[in-house]
Amino acid sequence: MKMNVAQKLIMDHLVSGDMEPGTEIGLKIDQTLTQDATGTMVMLELEAMGVDQAKTEASAQYVDHNLIQSDHRNPDDHLFLRSAAKRFGLYYSRPGNGVSHPVHMQKLCKPGRTLLGSDSHTCANGCMGMLAMGAGGIDVAMAIAGEPFYVKMPQVWGVKLTGKLPDWVSAKDVILEMLRRHDVKGGVGKIIEYYGPGLKDLSAMDRHVIANMGAELGATATVFPSDKEVKRFLKQQGREEDWQEISADKGATYDLHDEIDLSSLEPMIAKPSSPGNVVPVSEIAGEPIYQSYIGSSANPGYRDFAIAAEIVKGKYIANGVSFDINPSSRQTLTQLVDGGHIASLLSAGGRLHQAGCNGCIGMGQAPASGRNSLRTTPRNFPGRSGTKEDSVFLCSPETAAASALTGVITDPRTLEMSYPTIKEAKVDFDKEQGMLEEPISPAEGINVELEKGPNISSIPQLSPLEDSFEVPVLLKMGDNISTDEILAGGSRVLPYRSNLQKISTFTFEIVDDTYYERAMKQKDEGGHAVVGGYNYGQGSSREHAALAPRFLGLKAVVVKDFARIHLQNLINFGVLPVQFVDESDYEKIEAGDVLEFDNVRDKIQNDNEFEIGLKGKDEKIRVRHSLTSRHLDIILAGGVINWIKNKQQESGV
Amino acid sequence: MKMNVAQKLIMDHLVSGDMEPGTEIGLKIDQTLTQDATGTMVMLELEAMGVDQAKTEASAQYVDHNLIQSDHRNPDDHLFLRSAAKRFGLYYSRPGNGVSHPVHMQKLCKPGRTLLGSDSHTCANGCMGMLAMGAGGIDVAMAIAGEPFYVKMPQVWGVKLTGKLPDWVSAKDVILEMLRRHDVKGGVGKIIEYYGPGLKDLSAMDRHVIANMGAELGATATVFPSDKEVKRFLKQQGREEDWQEISADKGATYDLHDEIDLSSLEPMIAKPSSPGNVVPVSEIAGEPIYQSYIGSSANPGYRDFAIAAEIVKGKYIANGVSFDINPSSRQTLTQLVDGGHIASLLSAGGRLHQAGCNGCIGMGQAPASGRNSLRTTPRNFPGRSGTKEDSVFLCSPETAAASALTGVITDPRTLEMSYPTIKEAKVDFDKEQGMLEEPISPAEGINVELEKGPNISSIPQLSPLEDSFEVPVLLKMGDNISTDEILAGGSRVLPYRSNLQKISTFTFEIVDDTYYERAMKQKDEGGHAVVGGYNYGQGSSREHAALAPRFLGLKAVVVKDFARIHLQNLINFGVLPVQFVDESDYEKIEAGDVLEFDNVRDKIQNDNEFEIGLKGKDEKIRVRHSLTSRHLDIILAGGVINWIKNKQQESGV
Repeated sequence: MKMNVAQKLIMDHLVSGDMEPGTEIGLKIDQTLTQDATGTMVMLELEAMGVDQAKTEASAQYVDHNLIQSDHRNPDDHLFLRSAAKRFGLYYSRPGNGVSHPVHMQKLCKPGRTLLGSDSHTCANGCMGMLAMGAGGIDVAMAIAGEPFYVKMPQVWGVKLTGKLPDWVSAKDVILEMLRRHDVKGGVGKIIEYYGPGLKDLSAMDRHVIANMGAELGATATVFPSDKEVKRFLKQQGREEDWQEISADKGATYDLHDEIDLSSLEPMIAKPSSPGNVVPVSEIAGEPIYQSYIGSSANPGYRDFAIAAEIVKGKYIANGVSFDINPSSRQTLTQLVDGGHIASLLSAGGRLHQAGCNGCIGMGQAPASGRNSLRTTPRNFPGRSGTKEDSVFLCSPETAAASALTGVITDPRTLEMSYPTIKEAKVDFDKEQGMLEEPISPAEGINVELEKGPNISSIPQLSPLEDSFEVPVLLKMGDNISTDEILAGGSRVLPYRSNLQKISTFTFEIVDDTYYERAMKQKDEGGHAVVGGYNYGQGSSREHAALAPRFLGLKAVVVKDFARIHLQNLINFGVLPVQFVDESDYEKIEAGDVLEFDNVRDKIQNDNEFEIGLKGKDEKIRVRHSLTSRHLDIILAGGVINWIKNKQQESGV
Repeated sequence: MKMNVAQKLIMDHLVSGDMEPGTEIGLKIDQTLTQDATGTMVMLELEAMGVDQAKTEASAQYVDHNLIQSDHRNPDDHLFLRSAAKRFGLYYSRPGNGVSHPVHMQKLCKPGRTLLGSDSHTCANGCMGMLAMGAGGIDVAMAIAGEPFYVKMPQVWGVKLTGKLPDWVSAKDVILEMLRRHDVKGGVGKIIEYYGPGLKDLSAMDRHVIANMGAELGATATVFPSDKEVKRFLKQQGREEDWQEISADKGATYDLHDEIDLSSLEPMIAKPSSPGNVVPVSEIAGEPIYQSYIGSSANPGYRDFAIAAEIVKGKYIANGVSFDINPSSRQTLTQLVDGGHIASLLSAGGRLHQAGCNGCIGMGQAPASGRNSLRTTPRNFPGRSGTKEDSVFLCSPETAAASALTGVITDPRTLEMSYPTIKEAKVDFDKEQGMLEEPISPAEGINVELEKGPNISSIPQLSPLEDSFEVPVLLKMGDNISTDEILAGGSRVLPYRSNLQKISTFTFEIVDDTYYERAMKQKDEGGHAVVGGYNYGQGSSREHAALAPRFLGLKAVVVKDFARIHLQNLINFGVLPVQFVDESDYEKIEAGDVLEFDNVRDKIQNDNEFEIGLKGKDEKIRVRHSLTSRHLDIILAGGVINWIKNKQQESGV
């Protein structure tokens, strides 16, 4: 069989199932990545599971999300994560070292390997010929414990790149073009594989930009071949020996096809408030801006900052504009300092922040009410910036820098200057010391005590799925509800990620701020359900978006369809996820209706379709589920922690 | 009369009173400084007073405190302040330009002038031969409106400096030595004037360090002569023409005396949780640390960062230490980048933050629970860091950097290296563009509309002083209660500084978290009183520490004595401030007792002493006040806004 890159990576790691799109496969996981917003929970799960030592080739715990230390909670978490990294044999990246994805690429990625991360942009490392996927924290905990990762075999979508990007157009515009064509669910159930002659002018970091925002297309993963450029990048990082060539076999085919002539592209921009809301920059040029924001895992490369620096060099940004510079990693930051680019950005009026996720995840740099913010970040879901009524646009560093100078949305091609050439910077290994603390030996690790601050509490016992229950619909929502809307990120919420009682108070706050109170009222009265449209649970992989409503009594979610990671998270925490068989039934349910689930334990095991009643109405709603027998076991047990506990009891451990 | 520098500056600005220590004088104010935490209220006050245009020579609005933008509130305030600066004819320093005090020194200070600022460290610019004083926001609003500033004529305390600082000992150790000798109320009612041969080796920025923390001694101001070093500094800033020589007349005398032989000093450190709790570093060396923190207005100079950079250059900080670098101004930051020092700090493992007050005011960088934090900041009051149970030490950059390397409190003299020499950096004027937006003309300003975000609300109407009232004592406190304890700073609280209803919920939270609820219950029942010990209201000048409890019904404060700025703020907002005549009466009052004030409007006008009753107890408490007739008018009117309104009505405006 002639195989493409995606198939080769899967075949190499297949532990169960067949490579038949739509059927469940189990994959061996070589590497994991956790960040601090999701990692505290992962570490608590490892502790609950009784794991002694990571079974993976390399697992790294990054601290990049919760860098604002307004009180003891975030720094206490950093110390907890450091102790957990020592305890379980993980790498530890301290606050200020940067965003997990570029740091992992610089320090640990390996062509040919699988990477599972509790961050939805984990897919970024697909740029290096890895199969890199985002997942819920508990999936990553299981991978660290040596369990396979289960996923539906995706279709492989070959996207052929031809031609060469024109001046002022860069990798961000390529992925924005993909989003313009296919919108935020265009990649669902697919691995996107880029190939073709257009690759040769895209650096490894350019590919990172494209792979990163595969998450915004809803794709399971994005892969690039491991070619000479990948080799060059690894050599630059002093890791040439980690390279192996991986490319599609001659004659390999794809399940789906697309093609982009890079030379035909122009600067693109995603308007508020969806990454799929893409138009050419020229179409909306002239709109005044409040903020221009450079950084994040969506544009993490040296080039991405250096090009902005060259554009503003010797000039000064428009008065009243906040020009926020967010270095992606300490390596890139020191290179930018040495290259004179930080000086240019500061002299032009930039606000330089520490390396990390920062405003991309709503940790600082929120825009003023109703003002336009241009960002090189991957997402502009409503409220994600921290400002409820925000107006966030996604664009390339070229567009952001040009607009900072003029104070209005500006097509960078209209600047009166020639396109700057950026030479790649060398890595100064003397300046890399301590970027990642190495794992300690198991013998030492076993004696490390977890440092739990007062804001870290254990996961409560969750009950198994009841056989029959009646639950009111507390929310009826539309399409594309993101996990940011289910449970916001940001500095108000994220500090409580290890304090379930407290974090649950924010659940669905953006959708309906009466939800929490109503759910609490219903909690001991049998719980509740919610109803949604297409692509329910898109966006960030945070498992709290499943765990928090579950804690508040959420028993079932009825939607048109689910975003992949959130579906998995619902299963993992024992919430029953079902879809309408007839999507027009969506109209039949109103908020406040009571759903009747009868003998549901039997029903879901016996059939993929069953009926639920609408109390007091002469209607039945036919729903279906796509749960595998493994999923069913987990749902029936009330979630994966119960399932593992039961498994351990059965095996007498 | 032979005059010292302080007397010359006062004489030049005296509009009422005589230079008799302890009597009230009125001073013409040439310059003002407001920052964002206090400035929004100042701008609302200017609006309420109907001011059209600043009457001062130069007034500047800085944005340095509230740089964490977690939602719309801080960025909305920045836009409000910018619009107000345009409206009233002020300079505007945007977020990221740095801390008001060093930026004011670089850009606007002028030897021989008076400077009033709504920030307690305004005294820092006394290093440049200015009379620079912190005050409540409303005092600064009045100064901007052209009103004199009233203060009790301080004693002038001459501190003679001799000798030269040894290697590894720097300006911070000088002011820590002053605090060791005289503690946090040693400077109350005094202007500290440094003179003598020791000055010649102290740069203008070294003097800034010493003048800045005059605030921690409780001093009204700190002055240095305007000598050749001041001229050199101004020349470096391209402002040589702003220089004039100001020195004490030969034979001038001082009311009080002290002397420091600089050559006898060693590295000093203030232990938790008071700046006056000073010991030699060597005495507590070896204690493990969580954090080493460089920056703030207390060590803002190029030298202060460069010396830390040279100490850690080519080395790596101890694992587990958070090494936080907080540049003081954009000028200093660009100089440090150009000088290679930022590269050294980053490579050693530093976390580089944007230029501003940051963690010094509890906006980020809070330490982990119970862990030691070493900071070059001016204050370590309990909870100011953001962590309730904090453990903050104050020290020089030398001590902080040495300790970052070892992971324990370290006397820098024990490092195995020679003391680095730091050459002053040049100012690159090309990189200074837009650091301060210039005032616009009154004709343009009059048309500027104030941009008020949804979190900015007007000041409520306050009632005049009642003649007779009975109020329960809701709190009985000890000595040295700081304004941080009355109303905390930090990222939870500061965003509400223009939203009185909300910010008042945090009042006295650190002292007693039941206060707010009890005060609210009492608000419509006649209000309440509080009782305290010595130096009540020390620390930050924030007027909300008077306004918020006043809003909650605070009618009278009975203490042993007051810190100057807070006393003024209580008067300005119409709270009656009285002191025990017999300090042992402090013991007679218990929390919960009801104080009886009878005919108090007459009594305070007729006499400086009067009696208050203790309801149900056979005791009278004799108290005194030191209110001038102007103060009395203000208190009777219910605060300065009512007073100005009445004045305008009387004059038919």
